[in-house]
Amino acid sequence: MTSRFSSFRRLAALAAFCTAGVLLSSTAAAAVRKYDMNIEDTRITLVEKQQYHTFAFSGQVPGPLFFVDEGDQVEVNVNNVTALPHSIHWHGMLQKGTWKMDGIAGTTQAPIQPGESFTYKFIAEPSGTMWYHCHVNVNEHVVLRGMWGPFIVRPKKPTALEKTVTKDFIMMLSDWDSKWADKPGFGGLPGDKFDYFTINGKSFPDNQPLRVKQGDVVRMRFIGAGDLVHSIHLHGHVMTVAFKDGFPLPAPYKADTLAVAPGERYDVIFTADNPGLWMIHDHVDSHVMNGDRPMGGIMSVLEYEGIKPDDFYDWKKKKFEPNFYYEESLKKGPGIYTNDGFKGQAVQ
Amino acid sequence: MTSRFSSFRRLAALAAFCTAGVLLSSTAAAAVRKYDMNIEDTRITLVEKQQYHTFAFSGQVPGPLFFVDEGDQVEVNVNNVTALPHSIHWHGMLQKGTWKMDGIAGTTQAPIQPGESFTYKFIAEPSGTMWYHCHVNVNEHVVLRGMWGPFIVRPKKPTALEKTVTKDFIMMLSDWDSKWADKPGFGGLPGDKFDYFTINGKSFPDNQPLRVKQGDVVRMRFIGAGDLVHSIHLHGHVMTVAFKDGFPLPAPYKADTLAVAPGERYDVIFTADNPGLWMIHDHVDSHVMNGDRPMGGIMSVLEYEGIKPDDFYDWKKKKFEPNFYYEESLKKGPGIYTNDGFKGQAVQ
Amino acid sequence: MTSRFSSFRRLAALAAFCTAGVLLSSTAAAAVRKYDMNIEDTRITLVEKQQYHTFAFSGQVPGPLFFVDEGDQVEVNVNNVTALPHSIHWHGMLQKGTWKMDGIAGTTQAPIQPGESFTYKFIAEPSGTMWYHCHVNVNEHVVLRGMWGPFIVRPKKPTALEKTVTKDFIMMLSDWDSKWADKPGFGGLPGDKFDYFTINGKSFPDNQPLRVKQGDVVRMRFIGAGDLVHSIHLHGHVMTVAFKDGFPLPAPYKADTLAVAPGERYDVIFTADNPGLWMIHDHVDSHVMNGDRPMGGIMSVLEYEGIKPDDFYDWKKKKFEPNFYYEESLKKGPGIYTNDGFKGQAVQ
Repeated sequence: MTSRFSSFRRLAALAAFCTAGVLLSSTAAAAVRKYDMNIEDTRITLVEKQQYHTFAFSGQVPGPLFFVDEGDQVEVNVNNVTALPHSIHWHGMLQKGTWKMDGIAGTTQAPIQPGESFTYKFIAEPSGTMWYHCHVNVNEHVVLRGMWGPFIVRPKKPTALEKTVTKDFIMMLSDWDSKWADKPGFGGLPGDKFDYFTINGKSFPDNQPLRVKQGDVVRMRFIGAGDLVHSIHLHGHVMTVAFKDGFPLPAPYKADTLAVAPGERYDVIFTADNPGLWMIHDHVDSHVMNGDRPMGGIMSVLEYEGIKPDDFYDWKKKKFEPNFYYEESLKKGPGIYTNDGFKGQAVQ
Repeated sequence: MTSRFSSFRRLAALAAFCTAGVLLSSTAAAAVRKYDMNIEDTRITLVEKQQYHTFAFSGQVPGPLFFVDEGDQVEVNVNNVTALPHSIHWHGMLQKGTWKMDGIAGTTQAPIQPGESFTYKFIAEPSGTMWYHCHVNVNEHVVLRGMWGPFIVRPKKPTALEKTVTKDFIMMLSDWDSKWADKPGFGGLPGDKFDYFTINGKSFPDNQPLRVKQGDVVRMRFIGAGDLVHSIHLHGHVMTVAFKDGFPLPAPYKADTLAVAPGERYDVIFTADNPGLWMIHDHVDSHVMNGDRPMGGIMSVLEYEGIKPDDFYDWKKKKFEPNFYYEESLKKGPGIYTNDGFKGQAVQ
Repeated sequence: MTSRFSSFRRLAALAAFCTAGVLLSSTAAAAVRKYDMNIEDTRITLVEKQQYHTFAFSGQVPGPLFFVDEGDQVEVNVNNVTALPHSIHWHGMLQKGTWKMDGIAGTTQAPIQPGESFTYKFIAEPSGTMWYHCHVNVNEHVVLRGMWGPFIVRPKKPTALEKTVTKDFIMMLSDWDSKWADKPGFGGLPGDKFDYFTINGKSFPDNQPLRVKQGDVVRMRFIGAGDLVHSIHLHGHVMTVAFKDGFPLPAPYKADTLAVAPGERYDVIFTADNPGLWMIHDHVDSHVMNGDRPMGGIMSVLEYEGIKPDDFYDWKKKKFEPNFYYEESLKKGPGIYTNDGFKGQAVQ
């Protein structure tokens, strides 16, 4: 379907390689962060044999991590290498004075047509856990085609609590209907039956554990990127719900289970003070399914360093791939980070 | 179906004309607000060609706005001109000492049978964003037949924040299954597939923009009048979530996305400080559909005065009808307001 | 199916009889609370003729009430008398230093196979409204087979507000799909259509009223034990939402409607200051159904002492069975309480 764009795609990929990274601006306070990003027909694997045709940012789901400082100038040139129109909404960005950069096809811009490009330029504010996603035919493109990624804005004045954090995880929650896996341009209709559920694009057991050591102060950034409410339960710890949509809550509260609706973000913080292997999962029990097979979906394990699992442990022989929750990238400080673990196969 | 009630209906309509309005009571503090309201078989248009058979209060969906002062005596005579039994629950009203006015068929009253009337009398308390709806076969009458309207009680002691409001919008959210559009008396069953989604009874693009000017302090009153959770995202602004079910929150919090469950009300307040055209929509992506057509449903645009839209703007040629969010009525002070824009066609 | 376990079951039942109850520990502060609990194939009745095959704790749904003091040592020996593997997760218990007691088959333990037993030992902390449920094939066992019960931990330092409580009710909310009623080992699949909805395992009108007298300070403990969000509306009173997942909220807020997601718990407190008969029900209107019959499901009535109902009252001739909300057991102080009203019939 997209073969007519193949040479364009190669050029665009080259451009992305050349311009990614940080260019310090002339002022001390704010950087200019430029990035060149393709939207590509990409086949990813949700779990086991279940693949899905996506329109992937930089060929990966979730898309690249934008980790920027509050006040940074962000410039993203988007090349649409798919056969359908798209746009990007930077969910949570105020776009103060730049409403035409808000990415709404039909309101703030014409859609980016196949083979076309569009450059978004805006200031990163406010700070907090934000995200970006397509704003054309969202019922299909966002829900079923993986057109989303994390956008984290580091605050100028962090709260006392977040300053203590030593481990930072991003968890994007979404839902899929396998019926539409191989039908790009279709799906996302009333009555669709979601049967796969992922954290950062993968279902248990093909996602990854969250590794911590005793004494860590852990932050989890939940992002509701799909179509359903997910009710996240962490075992063995008390979460302090500290941020909503990036904003510090005036009265942070404690919870062991937290409902995350589509579009919402919640940052929770807790101390890793209870060594063991602890489940974290969606308590909507029908969301811990892989199709009709139980105990998959939105489920992972908080693994403490030094805990020796028993033989019955589902992940006894699991190969660990750090950075599945962008935890390694977040340690490196601001930047724009791709992640090979999230790459799919290009669809020709 | 209801032809046997036609003369009754005419009489009732006449009565409504005569008694609507405000009668000041003998005390300075509280008014007596009397209203005569029919429940009528009415066909409304959700969007484009999608019509729906409703049991409409005063022949409109949403029903008339009750905007009263805290402590007012409210008297509503309800005439059931449809072929099915009904009652009215004044959702949020405490009914202190008047439990038999709570409108629950089978508990506080016998249902109002076809051709019969019932007069509700109660004191308007507490203050805040309330609503009213039928309490007979709610799965059909509330969810599918448009039997709901806004009930706003102006507080004796407004909060400092709400005193600053200059623009006040009411947004009732609901869901429809087109399968039952022409089958009054049926529908609202487990497994129903909602395929239309409305704000104040209309879907994008047949609803209206929310018009503001720079400097306005905007209040939006979300009312969950349907069967589903709606996750409302406002672009370009930070909402302060200030009221829940009419009550001031002790710790108002900031959000760009807010989940509204059935029966709940949330009042958010924000300053219009960012001129542009800004989407506001349900982030449950399957709720921005009109049947199987994307980018409709629960979606609107916050339009700033003086912004010139581009040619690609979906509402470039939109005819503006003020008061779609009862914003004009709310400016006029307490009263009971019908709204011609919400009227449907009588079903004979 | 389970006949091969029948003598085992009899022995286990005998053991349960012998060891239930409280053994004071050697310290003054903490008790050791031992219990012996079977998991049994049990047929319960949801409402009218709708029965359901469950895997019931002690042969009842909800399971026995664990009402313990903060810091108590809890020891529960679980005998699996069904034909399928199970485990028990004590939802909310921190399991500080006892992660292998957390009850997660495949992570913290091997599943308890048919005919086998497992003894859980842990300290009851933190305090608050907790619950327990199976953690094997939760999509079926928790959602459809009634494998849940309440676990209340009385705090060492109660809040000022909760000290005033005079009536304490437990309300576990859940959802059922009648298609799987007689197919143990199956069900809980994507696309399932929930058509029955219960409070403590029974639907209106086969559940019970909540009886109070004027002046009572009422606590309702909502537990999301099913697969759906329930939006609970109480008429005639203002709920103060005081606890979330057992933890006192730093800023309790007022509401008349409260959304409870799966796994979550909310404790609300209000004063019974408005005599009458008042509905309390799920405002998701499709959840007040019994199959395709309206005005059932998650619905009950708050009945004040001394109020004389009218003849149209649905529960005019209702036989009252106290303790349906474990309100009588909660008055007795800590202990482990079965409830004959929740017993089903053993399936041979």
